[in-house]
Amino acid sequence: MAYPQSTFIHTALDPTCFIGRKREVVRKSTLKYQLEALKSTGRYDAFKLKWHPIYNEPPDTWPVPKHLFWDSDIAKWIEGACYFLHESKDPEIEGAIKELVQMIRSASQPDGYLNIHFTVVDPEGRFTNLRDMHELYNAGHLIEAAVAYHELYNDNDLLEPILKYVDLLHETFGPGDHQRHGFPGHPEIEFALLRLYAVTRDEKHRQLAKYFIQERGNPTGQSGRHYYDVEREERGERQYEWPTYYPTESRYRYQQAHLPILEQPTIEGHSVRAMYLLTAASDLVRQSKDMADYKVSLLRLWDNMVDKKMYMTGGIGSVKQWEGFGPDYLLPHGTDEGGCYGETCASIGVMMLAHRLLQLDLNGKYGDIMELCFYNTVLGGMSADGTKFSYTNQLASSDTDLSERADWFQVACCPPNVTRLLGSIGGYLWDYEEDVLSKSVLIKVHMYASGTLTCRLSDGRDIKLKLESTYPWRGELKFELIGQADIETKVVLRIPDFVSEWKYEADDLKTEQRPKSGYFTIPVQSGGDVAKFTVHLPMVHRLIRPHPYTNQDTVTLARGPLVYCIEDVDNPWTDDHFKASNLPRDIEIQISDSETGESFIGYRVSNAASRINLRAIQTSPAILRSTLLTTHDKVPQELIFIPFYFRANRKGRGHMRVAIRHAHS
Amino acid sequence: MAYPQSTFIHTALDPTCFIGRKREVVRKSTLKYQLEALKSTGRYDAFKLKWHPIYNEPPDTWPVPKHLFWDSDIAKWIEGACYFLHESKDPEIEGAIKELVQMIRSASQPDGYLNIHFTVVDPEGRFTNLRDMHELYNAGHLIEAAVAYHELYNDNDLLEPILKYVDLLHETFGPGDHQRHGFPGHPEIEFALLRLYAVTRDEKHRQLAKYFIQERGNPTGQSGRHYYDVEREERGERQYEWPTYYPTESRYRYQQAHLPILEQPTIEGHSVRAMYLLTAASDLVRQSKDMADYKVSLLRLWDNMVDKKMYMTGGIGSVKQWEGFGPDYLLPHGTDEGGCYGETCASIGVMMLAHRLLQLDLNGKYGDIMELCFYNTVLGGMSADGTKFSYTNQLASSDTDLSERADWFQVACCPPNVTRLLGSIGGYLWDYEEDVLSKSVLIKVHMYASGTLTCRLSDGRDIKLKLESTYPWRGELKFELIGQADIETKVVLRIPDFVSEWKYEADDLKTEQRPKSGYFTIPVQSGGDVAKFTVHLPMVHRLIRPHPYTNQDTVTLARGPLVYCIEDVDNPWTDDHFKASNLPRDIEIQISDSETGESFIGYRVSNAASRINLRAIQTSPAILRSTLLTTHDKVPQELIFIPFYFRANRKGRGHMRVAIRHAHS
Repeated sequence: MAYPQSTFIHTALDPTCFIGRKREVVRKSTLKYQLEALKSTGRYDAFKLKWHPIYNEPPDTWPVPKHLFWDSDIAKWIEGACYFLHESKDPEIEGAIKELVQMIRSASQPDGYLNIHFTVVDPEGRFTNLRDMHELYNAGHLIEAAVAYHELYNDNDLLEPILKYVDLLHETFGPGDHQRHGFPGHPEIEFALLRLYAVTRDEKHRQLAKYFIQERGNPTGQSGRHYYDVEREERGERQYEWPTYYPTESRYRYQQAHLPILEQPTIEGHSVRAMYLLTAASDLVRQSKDMADYKVSLLRLWDNMVDKKMYMTGGIGSVKQWEGFGPDYLLPHGTDEGGCYGETCASIGVMMLAHRLLQLDLNGKYGDIMELCFYNTVLGGMSADGTKFSYTNQLASSDTDLSERADWFQVACCPPNVTRLLGSIGGYLWDYEEDVLSKSVLIKVHMYASGTLTCRLSDGRDIKLKLESTYPWRGELKFELIGQADIETKVVLRIPDFVSEWKYEADDLKTEQRPKSGYFTIPVQSGGDVAKFTVHLPMVHRLIRPHPYTNQDTVTLARGPLVYCIEDVDNPWTDDHFKASNLPRDIEIQISDSETGESFIGYRVSNAASRINLRAIQTSPAILRSTLLTTHDKVPQELIFIPFYFRANRKGRGHMRVAIRHAHS
Repeated sequence: MAYPQSTFIHTALDPTCFIGRKREVVRKSTLKYQLEALKSTGRYDAFKLKWHPIYNEPPDTWPVPKHLFWDSDIAKWIEGACYFLHESKDPEIEGAIKELVQMIRSASQPDGYLNIHFTVVDPEGRFTNLRDMHELYNAGHLIEAAVAYHELYNDNDLLEPILKYVDLLHETFGPGDHQRHGFPGHPEIEFALLRLYAVTRDEKHRQLAKYFIQERGNPTGQSGRHYYDVEREERGERQYEWPTYYPTESRYRYQQAHLPILEQPTIEGHSVRAMYLLTAASDLVRQSKDMADYKVSLLRLWDNMVDKKMYMTGGIGSVKQWEGFGPDYLLPHGTDEGGCYGETCASIGVMMLAHRLLQLDLNGKYGDIMELCFYNTVLGGMSADGTKFSYTNQLASSDTDLSERADWFQVACCPPNVTRLLGSIGGYLWDYEEDVLSKSVLIKVHMYASGTLTCRLSDGRDIKLKLESTYPWRGELKFELIGQADIETKVVLRIPDFVSEWKYEADDLKTEQRPKSGYFTIPVQSGGDVAKFTVHLPMVHRLIRPHPYTNQDTVTLARGPLVYCIEDVDNPWTDDHFKASNLPRDIEIQISDSETGESFIGYRVSNAASRINLRAIQTSPAILRSTLLTTHDKVPQELIFIPFYFRANRKGRGHMRVAIRHAHS
């Protein structure tokens, strides 16, 4: 079963291609920068279980202590770092990993328990608040780090204490009378356990994951009541005593525990939790024959998300209070329009889920969204130099939320998540399946980047697929397939839904064959000789409009998988985050090469934005706005568009907008 | 000092004019209908202080019991009924009033305390939760009822127990060491006390009102802390134990107690509370020379509300959770667009505030909004037959909130509020001031309806102003002024901001004089003889657009003070609350007379709405929406518009919309 975290090693990316360069930035800068951050903030030494001054500080958001996620911050960095060390060693990074692993080992308690906060600060509180305290979430990330470490060094130093901890969890939680019928407030451990199972083949690990997934949202799980209700009563909390991040109605929507997964009609609540949960559920479906009903729910929730709750950038989550989903079609672009969250981690979660669904059902609609998220809301989470980050991906700035990046976050989930994702990106680009009986290999290409996929056959031989391309800037994809004489190799390519016309060329033949569910099967099947073929995906700009039910009557410039935005750096005349700007109907759009350090294709739009004359409005009360929007200041003559992912990389006033009002006059 | 609740008696409305007919509906149907509702729900007998089954029921919204507002429901009905009895007696109504007054007297406690819930259900709880429990709000409505009853019968039966209660309140609350430094969670009693003062001239009454207003939002009022913090601690509530209606940040914004009024930069929180508070503050400014700084705050908050937080219907409040204001320019039209509240009571509050501000500063901008609210969101709160009501005034229906009316509400604030308002409407239409020294009278006409204003001079003589008009349908205003030989009578008329051209005509002269701050001074000044003059306000339709910062790119049909809407009854083809409907740019608009029981001017728009072809969208993920909105179904050919206030008066599916997307193609 393909896990990108394991299969990425088959990919050798050209470090000069678009994705390759991003990956190099992380390898050379981000990893070390984040290591420094772990050290300077006290995270690095936290597993020594000494007291840290921050442990005395009151939480910004009750009941979550400021340091509650430190375990996961360390684990995610270790995991991400391991992915980069496969192809190139780095003594400094490796030294840190080894030291951290020893500290984690030393933090393991006699009974196997392993958590910083509940060992140092609140030993009594252990397992008393699964709902809010991220105890199992931290455990899950430790498991993922241990597996990554194990696969890199083939060494059990980290796996050992983790397996001991997992045994404790397996004893503590489950259907037995002596066990707690609980499940994590923040899903994560579920797919971590399934990945662990893929390594250990220990049924316990699969069982516990399955239990957490199936027990979730059970209204009568703990002595006839919802586990979280019983748990909070045991903590002595009162009926109206709630953390501020909960919705006021159907509280447990927050963590997708308001209903069992099978009964959830729509995607709700905290968007990262939702993506992690559904990814785990799809892993379970992939592994278990008896989970077909979960597949139905997965597809229902995916469609609800993509059709009604996703921004045109691939961002999800419009409600800041619970960092998650609002009602269908409620997708405002910025804080002063009603909110826009689009957390970076959430889009990484969408990529994880899309990748899993592609394994269940090879359909371009999953690949399209996976690619959309990657190029806009995932890459958008990191600065060009890899040392500044964006937690959210709003589509428009406002005075209260400027478009800018931070060095680090107290809740630092996003930065190491981008590291992990880029570390294992090879596993998302493409994958292959060998069928030993029929002596055949199927290679599925989902995303495009210059590099080589090496398919290691069960008998040790290799089949290679090479790709040369400047995607996403140009759509020419030059493939070279080096097969084996006795192996039938079939290659299928995702034809993105944004291209209307495309072309396939090989030395000897053309084809009229249409893609099936978004994937095109290369008509040549290599039998040993080298097969070359080229696919042309025309890259042209287009204007996107959101669904009318979003009540957002705007246009957005896009090219291939990239969404574009305007910033005050290039368009310094703006004074209101481009809120009063209009894009006329007769604009002329020309390609303009980047004038920044980053090399990209930008756009120069002439005969561009007019501005609504607001002075005419301020004097009139609501009822009198008949003449409104009819008087426009015809400035400026030109608008500069840059890729959304590149926003907030230069000095500016933090004014940015993706979707621009469409002029009426 | 003019109070519409006192001055309306100078107006004799023509019962066949638009407003006259609405008032007749209330007199003939609504009053009796509401009396029946009071009886059938148990409210009528509640002041007998017997137990009622509902007292056992848990609150829908903690900590507010279902019956908490009963005192005010009864008081508001008495008050409203008294306004109608001035011109025509009604034995049934009067019998009920007398009986209720005796029951209220009998409920008065030895120390003067007077409240149903805290006498029957929770005697211990008295004055322990000013923040949420509406104790002083109920007291305020009882005061207003007592004043109305006193002015009708010149009899102290109701005033007596109320004055005793007010003495208790005056002892209990104030700056003294032995006193509580509290203030009401729901303002109301402040202007009730000031109105009481206008009758009693008892300084105590003015002092207490002034104390409540000035103490409000004091961060250090009670032993160095906010009164509500101290109060809740005394109740033993915890830091995170809150009713669900509070915002999660700056909680006391909910009842405008987050800051002292003078320091509040913007209008926030529960919109009815805000309007009642500011109305009381403006009454205080009118009465006290030392309150000029409050006038500055009043105008600042008014402008913030009208310019940035008011719907084009005059509705205020977009957030359902706290029934109040959202951020600047966040004015979605319906629940599935992010919310729309526009409570009827809130618009009545806007009318009260606008009327007070007109006394402070005669400016048409207040009159425009007062009229806007009356014709759309106040009249919209009651059905044509006066027996069904709408609590809110959303601009668009949705599946979760259909456009429909209810027989009654558990929290029944709105129905009797419309009754009170229409009972005293004469006081809003116009008022007059006599200057005995200069022997002159100034008559200010704010709104237009057929009828006669009788200005009773200090020497007992009368000056009359008669108006004949079919306003708001037609804009011809025929005036007749019958003056006194030795009195100089000056008449000023509000020229609504929605007319661009208008005409003044008198037998002998025309004028070119422009209105000053929206008010036009009639050049003829009657000296005894009868002066006739006519003003023509052209009534034509116009298309309104909301402020661009609302991000609502829509058009709305309006005529004079009336906003129009479309309903599925007249446009049965809609299946999505007109969400995908477009109004093309080349529509033809014709007047169509009402085909309903109600007589009004409607509109028939031909070459009208096309519908976006949604099938084309459902198949495409977000990124691919380039072709979106370009394919339209060209149905229907015709759209029927009716006045917004008349919505939901006929059988239908409850689909309604005020603001319609403006077609691009």
